Amino acid sequence: MTPFRELVTPACIIDEQKLSANARRMATVAENAGVALRPHVKTLKSLEAAQIYAPLSSPVTVSTLAEAKAFAQAGYTDILYAVGLTPNKIGVVNELLAEQVRLTVLIDSVAAAQALARQARMLSATLYVAIEVDTDGHRAGVDAESKALIDIAVITNRSDNLTVAGVMAHAGASYGAFDIESRQHLAQQECDKSLLAAARLEDAGHSVTMISVGSTPTALSGITHEGITELRAGVYATFDCVMAGLGVCQYSEIALSVLTSVIGRQDDKGWVLVDAGWMALSRDTGTASHSVDCGYGLVCDEHGELLDGWIVQQTNQEHGVIVHRDGLTPDDTQFGYGKMLRILPIHACATAGQFSEYHVTTDNIHSEKVWQRINGW
Amino acid sequence: MTPFRELVTPACIIDEQKLSANARRMATVAENAGVALRPHVKTLKSLEAAQIYAPLSSPVTVSTLAEAKAFAQAGYTDILYAVGLTPNKIGVVNELLAEQVRLTVLIDSVAAAQALARQARMLSATLYVAIEVDTDGHRAGVDAESKALIDIAVITNRSDNLTVAGVMAHAGASYGAFDIESRQHLAQQECDKSLLAAARLEDAGHSVTMISVGSTPTALSGITHEGITELRAGVYATFDCVMAGLGVCQYSEIALSVLTSVIGRQDDKGWVLVDAGWMALSRDTGTASHSVDCGYGLVCDEHGELLDGWIVQQTNQEHGVIVHRDGLTPDDTQFGYGKMLRILPIHACATAGQFSEYHVTTDNIHSEKVWQRINGW
Repeated sequence: MTPFRELVTPACIIDEQKLSANARRMATVAENAGVALRPHVKTLKSLEAAQIYAPLSSPVTVSTLAEAKAFAQAGYTDILYAVGLTPNKIGVVNELLAEQVRLTVLIDSVAAAQALARQARMLSATLYVAIEVDTDGHRAGVDAESKALIDIAVITNRSDNLTVAGVMAHAGASYGAFDIESRQHLAQQECDKSLLAAARLEDAGHSVTMISVGSTPTALSGITHEGITELRAGVYATFDCVMAGLGVCQYSEIALSVLTSVIGRQDDKGWVLVDAGWMALSRDTGTASHSVDCGYGLVCDEHGELLDGWIVQQTNQEHGVIVHRDGLTPDDTQFGYGKMLRILPIHACATAGQFSEYHVTTDNIHSEKVWQRINGW
Repeated sequence: MTPFRELVTPACIIDEQKLSANARRMATVAENAGVALRPHVKTLKSLEAAQIYAPLSSPVTVSTLAEAKAFAQAGYTDILYAVGLTPNKIGVVNELLAEQVRLTVLIDSVAAAQALARQARMLSATLYVAIEVDTDGHRAGVDAESKALIDIAVITNRSDNLTVAGVMAHAGASYGAFDIESRQHLAQQECDKSLLAAARLEDAGHSVTMISVGSTPTALSGITHEGITELRAGVYATFDCVMAGLGVCQYSEIALSVLTSVIGRQDDKGWVLVDAGWMALSRDTGTASHSVDCGYGLVCDEHGELLDGWIVQQTNQEHGVIVHRDGLTPDDTQFGYGKMLRILPIHACATAGQFSEYHVTTDNIHSEKVWQRINGW
């Protein structure tokens, strides 16, 4: 038990009660839909944190093979690496197979399938392959109706040590959907196109065991997700200002914040300078296009209560500049030299990525324990 | 010696010859001006890298106490922590004093001086204090003509274990100065106001041994820096697209890049997807306001040769989207599945901060050694 006052700032704080509540919300969605939940552990990348939203028996999604290795070593047995595989990662993939992991990797082109097939002879066990389907033009993936989808499956399934698991889609366009109808539309489209791709694979004689969809906004959109086998989502565990700005959560549900100290002020400009710059908060300005621009983060008091209208407007490497939206003048009570504040992140994945450990609290006064983060690739 | 092809991407690459040339350029500026150079080690935060631009006999500037501890333990004896001190860091400061370091900390308010004076009794040796002077309205610091400047010195110098070293200024506004005349103006103003503040302190009876100025754009502006005692600068060691956009360096002088692999393409959009997203490149878009917007980075081939017109236009956590400015269609020769590319950083401090180690090359084909980075606070 270390009082926040004794922590060296900046420090990353996790409110364990909020994290648990957010985890329950998504688990209930999956239970009600009757589908498996495969949490994406990329936001916190922490084995201790995952106990709350992705217990050991859970399938998980990872964004790096470093995460995959750590989760495999901790006993997780069903891991989806949800970034298109590149040839230079096959050695690490094989190490993971040696750990008795059911590992699924992602590809989205005939060239990738051919390259993987050439490398597959060296694998020591079956590697499962998901074919990425593009459902909204957001990023990677083949069209559900494309010839490539079937060609990739053929090349994969005829290779030793490779088996097509099925399809994976991520409705990333949902990060730009500001009303529930838009999110439901994108969610239904994510399901429909994934189901279409899966049906085409089965029609072509390929067994499909994985129809995996998800993003936090679509997973929480309230559609039934009928027919899919699993939901994926990540940032729901902590939420952030982007999610609150979309209406997916309340600001009060954000479970992660950065503890910072006031360095000084420039009263003629209404500036409060703090020791959380972009090295702590990240350079993410993901709410700049929202109706409420939260800058580099919303400002709370030391206990995590929002200070209405105060935002981090500018950041340098180790300096943040806090201002009030309406130009209020900061005073010593809240913003005196040495006072501690908490900053709610714009994008929790980016902010958490700036730290190697988290201070976990339930009373919002003490760091009660420290959780480690798995950085790198 | 590991060929780039065998590295797991993304990986951070340093071109040692370019790093050395950049280091020589700044060292020559300081020598010609007859002032000490106190390199800011915040960009690479690496003891091995520092051997090239800040050898053991050199005074150094740090942005975190974690850097200060690592450099002190490695034998550096003159360290300036160039971020306003907060009360919760005094314990670490005292640990550094026990390492026989001449440590200088920064404050810019009477409140900070009073707080530090209250804590100073616990210190085991003399702590030097620089007073930050604001020369361009950019960030922190007191006005050179302010009463606060003198008050801070009085409070500090009458406290046991505290001694005013002098003044420090950082002309951060120079990051928005696109022509040499503007940079020279800001550089001269940085010197003039620092000299004025120093003179006022001396007139008030306070000995001044440190008149410290610098930013990469002002340090390289070509002014004489007459009267100041030391120059500080950091990003000059690697440079980046922001510095090249200002005209402070050439793109070909940038010593740091991110090695990445092609995951796939979306040919209808002209997109090349790579495995370097913002987790590798950072979210910094510091050239967005420049006449040439480099997005999230400029694209080079595997050997570091610029591919004219190709930029990283979008990033997700582990995905980057490369496009050509004029809409050229990517082809397999350069952008086929699995091909390796190198991305020049927008802001080297931010990009380097995403890694825990650097692969160092001289032939641009092999990683010849690995340098460690000191992250955290």
